[in-house]
Parts: sequence; structure tokens; C-alpha cells
Amino acid sequence: MVIKSSSNKFFKFFKSLLSKKNRNIENLFLVEGKKVILESLTYTRPEYVAMSETFYSDNKNKELVTKISSLCSTYIFTETIFNKLSSTENSQGIIGYYKQLHKTNLKQIKTGRYILLDDVKDPGNAGGIIRSADAFSIDGVILTKECVDLYNPKLIRSTMASIFRVDIYILEEKADIASLKDNDFKIVSTSIGNAASSYKYKFNGNLVIVMGNEAKGISDEMLSYSQEKIYIPMNDGIDSLNVNVASSIIMYEMNRDEKANC
Amino acid sequence: MVIKSSSNKFFKFFKSLLSKKNRNIENLFLVEGKKVILESLTYTRPEYVAMSETFYSDNKNKELVTKISSLCSTYIFTETIFNKLSSTENSQGIIGYYKQLHKTNLKQIKTGRYILLDDVKDPGNAGGIIRSADAFSIDGVILTKECVDLYNPKLIRSTMASIFRVDIYILEEKADIASLKDNDFKIVSTSIGNAASSYKYKFNGNLVIVMGNEAKGISDEMLSYSQEKIYIPMNDGIDSLNVNVASSIIMYEMNRDEKANC
Repeated sequence: MVIKSSSNKFFKFFKSLLSKKNRNIENLFLVEGKKVILESLTYTRPEYVAMSETFYSDNKNKELVTKISSLCSTYIFTETIFNKLSSTENSQGIIGYYKQLHKTNLKQIKTGRYILLDDVKDPGNAGGIIRSADAFSIDGVILTKECVDLYNPKLIRSTMASIFRVDIYILEEKADIASLKDNDFKIVSTSIGNAASSYKYKFNGNLVIVMGNEAKGISDEMLSYSQEKIYIPMNDGIDSLNVNVASSIIMYEMNRDEKANC
Repeated sequence: MVIKSSSNKFFKFFKSLLSKKNRNIENLFLVEGKKVILESLTYTRPEYVAMSETFYSDNKNKELVTKISSLCSTYIFTETIFNKLSSTENSQGIIGYYKQLHKTNLKQIKTGRYILLDDVKDPGNAGGIIRSADAFSIDGVILTKECVDLYNPKLIRSTMASIFRVDIYILEEKADIASLKDNDFKIVSTSIGNAASSYKYKFNGNLVIVMGNEAKGISDEMLSYSQEKIYIPMNDGIDSLNVNVASSIIMYEMNRDEKANC
């Protein structure tokens, strides 16, 4: 049955999930695109899937449609109203709705290497960092509550399917990071000088690397928890890099020893 | 004199420069924001500057306004019509118009280390790469003609002021790269395997590192000119990084020896 009316209750429900407030009430988020949804099935299953009539009836999608229909409730919409459910201008015609997957209890973390984003605001930056964390086998990404909404559709798109593979924590309070410090973790802030060069720093042991907000850098509070500082050496005239680029370079360095045989 | 009417000829001229076609006819491009325009004055001078009435009359901007008025023709617009000249939603109230600054003749290049973008389409990626090229003291960035327009306002914003400091070439034909090969340059493509690890590769001598399109990677034609391949080792499940991230990691590695004493 193809849903044609925007007064349909499923249409209204899915449309409501374009807002952060409703996503949080329902504990859901949305993922768009055939490739990423297909990849997600390795790790989880969607709660619901919405498809456009065109996507649903395209022979190329038959296998995916059959598979998804066996996993969760699927809803087919006319092209016109389907487009109102999408967060992109050029939708591929399929949207998956998944349970939110972040954690909040840092006490679960016993060992490992993490990136902490201190109030990073741009969805493309935060999503890109999650994608790179996956590529460089980082154990997880920790977001302060003041960061961009983790389930912002642009952020989710920028992660590619990495959102399903990387452990993500959202801090209730910045002070919560102290529990990791008590737990044998070193908190390391990125800085622009008076610090150890990323070319030489030994990324050993349990680590949290702190990356700052795009405009303001790392907050005084987060700096107060950090025991060491590192920086990425740059051309003298330049004092900053894009935060996704800087984070990715640090994670690339953290993965160096793992890939010593490459 | 404050320009109030959208039929004013200067208003119409500046507005026309929001389109690529007109920018190329006039050989101009636009840069927004107080900080970047101030920084640009170290390297060049704008041909024209447009300001909103509010920006112009704000005491905080007095010094900049005086300096700029001594360098080029400035035009003041009412808030309402000024906003139509801006490419951003939240304009700071000042736009500089500069002569286009790319070069096309690769024969000018005798030595150095360059990044070549093979049909990179996203303005944020291309602009971010120019910003990182500046940070890591790369000699220049070479764009294929099929790349995103260099003077796309979002690209220019992403470079911060690096657009004024990095040499940029636009290739008329991909085959033009052969002239560098004849000139003792090594052309090195980034790849996803069967290649030398970026952790170990020696970035010595005259180099052009080729980065591919976001979806398709490096074109067959560009591959045919390349003598070596390198890759960035990643988690087994992952086969790509964002092109700005990947380019920046390579440039960070290229700069390692320069910063050996850091």
C-alpha cells in the first residue's frame, strides 16, 4: 500500500523525526542512502524503513527491499510526500530509522584510546572525525553535551556507516571525564605551542585526546583536567587547522605502531 | 553616500559576481569577513570593497574602514540590499573583491612539492586542502579543470586566508601534467592497496601527489601519468577517508622532515 497523504500517521511520525527534540523523545535517528543502510545490516537492524514508490519498485533494489521487509516494518510513500521526510535535496529514496546508540556512562571504559570533542559545533567536522576514528581503529569518540547533536542528519551522513561501528559517548558534564583520569587514563589536550610535537609524541597506554571548538579551542574546564599537551607543527604564519583534519592527523599517528608492518 | 537601491549600477555589478560566469568574465572573486580581509592586505589589495551601513558606522571597524578606503574604491549599502550581495546567511557586513589569482602555466614550476586534485567536487574539501597546504608549507595546489570552481564562495571561505598564500594552478588539460614529469617531478597517486605505506614512504625530491574525486577516486588518465602509488593504512573494514583528511595527512607527512627539530 502506497501512502499518498500527508495526514497519514506514519508520515507524520517520520516527519517529526527531522527535529532533534522528537528524535530524543522517540530515542530514534535516521540514516539515508542505499549503501549505508545496506552496510548497517551487518551491525544492527532498523526499527522502520521508509521508501519512495520509485525506489520500492525499481528492480535493482529488489534484493534489499526483500531483506529489509523481513527485518522491520517498511512504509512506501509517493515521491512527493517521501521527499518531505528526507533531510537531503536529492534523496536516494530510502530512509532507515534506528535506535539511538550513544552511551553515557564513562565508567564502562576500562582501557583504550579515545578522542574527546570539546564543544565541536559543525556536523561535518564531528561526523568526519567519527569516520576517521573508524578508519584508524580508535576505541571511541566522546562528545561534550554542548557539541552539535550527534543525530543531526548531516553529521550522520558525514560518518558514512562509521556511526554503526564506533563507540560513542555523550558526557552529561565535562567533569565526568575525571573518572577516566582516576582510571589510569592520560588526558591530552591539543594545543598550538609549548607542547610536545605530534611527530614525536608516544601515543602509549590509555589515552583521551581532547580536540577543541572550531572558534574557541579547548575550554578552560577541559584544559584543567588535562595532564599533557601536544601540537601539530605547522608553517609559522598559521595557527590552526580544521578540527576534522587535526583530529584525523592525531588518530593517524595513534595508529602508526599498529600498522608498522604495512 | 549610502546606496539604497537595487537598481544602482554598483549593486548590480557586485551582485553579478555571485555567479561563476560573471566572476570569470570580470576576472574577480569575492572574500567575506573582517578577519580574512584584514589578513589579505598583507599580500594584496582588493579591487573594490562593499560594506553594510552598520559595519561602516561601527566604531570598532573604524581603523579597517580607513585603511581600506585608502587602498581601493569602497561602497556602502543599506543592510537590506547588502545582504543580497553576500553568499552567506550571516554576513559580517564586509565583502572584498579581488583579482583572480590562479596560474595556468605549469612550465613555471621548476622544483617543489605539489598536491594535485583530480576532479575534486566539494568546495569544503578543496578549500580545506588549500588551508592545509598552507599549514604544511606545500609549494602549491594544482586543480584539474573539472574540479569545483576555485572561486566558489564556500571554497574561498574554507581556505581561511590561505587562498592568498598558496600558489594555485588550474590545468587546461590533464595531459599538461606530463610537462612536470619531463621536468624531473615524480607523479605519485594515492591508492587503497598494492602501494607504499604513507608511514614509510620517503617524500623526497620534486613531487606531485594526486588525490582523487570523492566518489570515483583518481581518473584512469591521471593514473596513466603516475609513476608511484602510496596509501594510508587503515582499519580492514574501511576503504576510504574524506579527501580533505587524506590530503592533509599526506601533506603532514611531507612536512615531517622540515619539522624534525620541533
